[in-house]
Amino acid sequence: MKKKLTFLAALLIGVSAFAQQALFGGAGVESPVINPDGTVTFRYQNRKAVRVTLSGDFLPVQHLEFEMNGQKISYDAPGVAELRENNGVWEYTTPFAVEPEMYTYTFNVDGTQEIDPNNVFVNRDIASLTSVLLVPKAGERSDLYAVHHVPHGTVSKVWYPSATASFDRRMTVYTPAGYEENTKTKYPVLYVLHGIGGDEDAWVTQGRATQILDNLIARGEAKPMIVVFTNGNISQEAAPLENSTGYTRPTMDLPQTMDGTFETAFPEVVKFIDSHYRTIAKKQSRAICGLSMGGFHTLYITLNNPDMFAYSGMFSAAIGTGSEQTAAHKEIYADVDGKLATYFSKKPAMLWIGIGRTDFLIQSNNEFRAKLDAAGYPYKYMETDGGHIWKNWRIYLSEFVPLLFK
Amino acid sequence: MKKKLTFLAALLIGVSAFAQQALFGGAGVESPVINPDGTVTFRYQNRKAVRVTLSGDFLPVQHLEFEMNGQKISYDAPGVAELRENNGVWEYTTPFAVEPEMYTYTFNVDGTQEIDPNNVFVNRDIASLTSVLLVPKAGERSDLYAVHHVPHGTVSKVWYPSATASFDRRMTVYTPAGYEENTKTKYPVLYVLHGIGGDEDAWVTQGRATQILDNLIARGEAKPMIVVFTNGNISQEAAPLENSTGYTRPTMDLPQTMDGTFETAFPEVVKFIDSHYRTIAKKQSRAICGLSMGGFHTLYITLNNPDMFAYSGMFSAAIGTGSEQTAAHKEIYADVDGKLATYFSKKPAMLWIGIGRTDFLIQSNNEFRAKLDAAGYPYKYMETDGGHIWKNWRIYLSEFVPLLFK
Repeated sequence: MKKKLTFLAALLIGVSAFAQQALFGGAGVESPVINPDGTVTFRYQNRKAVRVTLSGDFLPVQHLEFEMNGQKISYDAPGVAELRENNGVWEYTTPFAVEPEMYTYTFNVDGTQEIDPNNVFVNRDIASLTSVLLVPKAGERSDLYAVHHVPHGTVSKVWYPSATASFDRRMTVYTPAGYEENTKTKYPVLYVLHGIGGDEDAWVTQGRATQILDNLIARGEAKPMIVVFTNGNISQEAAPLENSTGYTRPTMDLPQTMDGTFETAFPEVVKFIDSHYRTIAKKQSRAICGLSMGGFHTLYITLNNPDMFAYSGMFSAAIGTGSEQTAAHKEIYADVDGKLATYFSKKPAMLWIGIGRTDFLIQSNNEFRAKLDAAGYPYKYMETDGGHIWKNWRIYLSEFVPLLFK
Repeated sequence: MKKKLTFLAALLIGVSAFAQQALFGGAGVESPVINPDGTVTFRYQNRKAVRVTLSGDFLPVQHLEFEMNGQKISYDAPGVAELRENNGVWEYTTPFAVEPEMYTYTFNVDGTQEIDPNNVFVNRDIASLTSVLLVPKAGERSDLYAVHHVPHGTVSKVWYPSATASFDRRMTVYTPAGYEENTKTKYPVLYVLHGIGGDEDAWVTQGRATQILDNLIARGEAKPMIVVFTNGNISQEAAPLENSTGYTRPTMDLPQTMDGTFETAFPEVVKFIDSHYRTIAKKQSRAICGLSMGGFHTLYITLNNPDMFAYSGMFSAAIGTGSEQTAAHKEIYADVDGKLATYFSKKPAMLWIGIGRTDFLIQSNNEFRAKLDAAGYPYKYMETDGGHIWKNWRIYLSEFVPLLFK
């Protein structure tokens, strides 16, 4: 042990650029700490800072309002808490036990937003880095987001040739535990789409989708299935630093995101998956869902391909934003009433709609549901607390997946 | 366009916790910026900070010394530069064009080490987060680290049952472009091991190994091959937040890292790969290499399995640290001379050794080479500038891979 410590000591003292930093870096204090009573303590070491605050979605939200297209829209902003300084260490302990859930938070140090330098668990959401706080608890939903000793599926980054984009594009593919061993078994496929500014990583990192799948399948609450997480920005090859454009800052304002091009191109994704994986290549064994822009994509991919998906899930779908009218591929968004009639005449297994009560898109979703109700079209509906946030999208995925392929 | 902007505006103004932050977060300034003359500018916005410095491996290194086991050891620490403040924006421009390479850097704000909040490209090295600066240039080695419009392999996170550990463990598997289509083709396999404190992600993130493979294969400079990145910490299931232990801070001081257990367990990894992938399951088509602790593992896995690997690469191998004498599996490290004789009597295709001139392990590597020289055992050797750093390990991998399976 002594000798090994010598090697470790050498690495710590000597080595190079970042071996030192690995242990001495931001590691002065421990943060975050989930305390035995369920409260959580955050710490930040900086002797010269003047004011340090914390912004996180476990704090009570601030209800705010704004106007869009003449409508009054209410939404939730994350709560903010003050850290108190003692001898150079800033600290905040929640005055309540934090509910089991997966959260993100950042510090604000004298006006500069920063991640917690003592927490190596970081998510990127578009161009923003946030620190991750995961509070799992047996019997609670957030336990689905944790890794357990259960059989794990394989998560692959796969490139497919896109004729529409005229270059190769990257997707994430989940194959369930047993896929490699059961070489005669064919599987149903779920396609999962992200929101504007996201990419093929988003559902895996922020959505914890592969953990949700592993756990639901292991419990027997979902069928083993292949899950495909596409990149919904058709102008983009792949997530940042995984594409040939190098230092491009992620942005929400990419071209061709909601103009019909991705929806037009989607059958090439299905064709690739059906030709490269052991899929059950028919409607009854295909599902699609998506959040925000991905919910919008889901609706129009479904309506324009009424024989492709038996199950469709719209999570906080970005419908009614008006982007349909200026689209390059207007035909994708044309004749919604006629397409809905055709779609429902073919008796899909399920249309599922989920949205938060304070989501700024609830009005347009309510209008869409009123249209379905008026025509007597069946759908399942879930309304949750909160707004346009990842917490809700994880909930919707974990509600949607057990209903598939029954 | 107007309507789409309305939706974007809604997202920006309203939405939720982190959509706002996505564009307004740390985004006050642009950093880093590679200027037309090749210099690089770094910026950090903070009106109240007193001193901001930058530590990065593109700055001239500081040569330092320390003692280990009575030997004087010299090593390189990363250079440090001061940022100057102007109206709340701290800035530093390198006084030189930065050589094409992949670098990491951090800011130090009044004693607190932080990543660049304006740069979303972040690497984790053990428990340390660093910002990434990639300067690719056509014709230079660093161009291998960039993504190009070439056929891309698939990168998968795969779990295998470890009888030694008695739980499932995660590895990263690269299958070359064409693997899925050429269903009759069998491929050689390279196993790539990480250093102490690393995990199955390290070579892919910091090592840019899959980009190196894609590019070398596309140029015709390397054979298409399967590459397996194991997790060399046998007590660990997987990288942080991908294992069942939850909030465990990554550490260099895990149990069983250099005590013979991993080497003993390694054949189960090879067996899993040979039974799950279309491999050429014989010595001439198997290679292994590793950095630091992984170079140490490589040596002993090779010597204890002389019929398994035709090609072995020791990158800055952590040999001579003395950990062998206190190992749980002393037999793994026993009779090195006899095992070397057996190994070389079987005429391996290549033993490859690479190390930096200022690596703190160069002395023990020199002693090992002297032993090989004295016995007349053949090996290839590469000595580079610099020390125990990722830059060197990327270089060694990109030198080693083209020599395999010829």
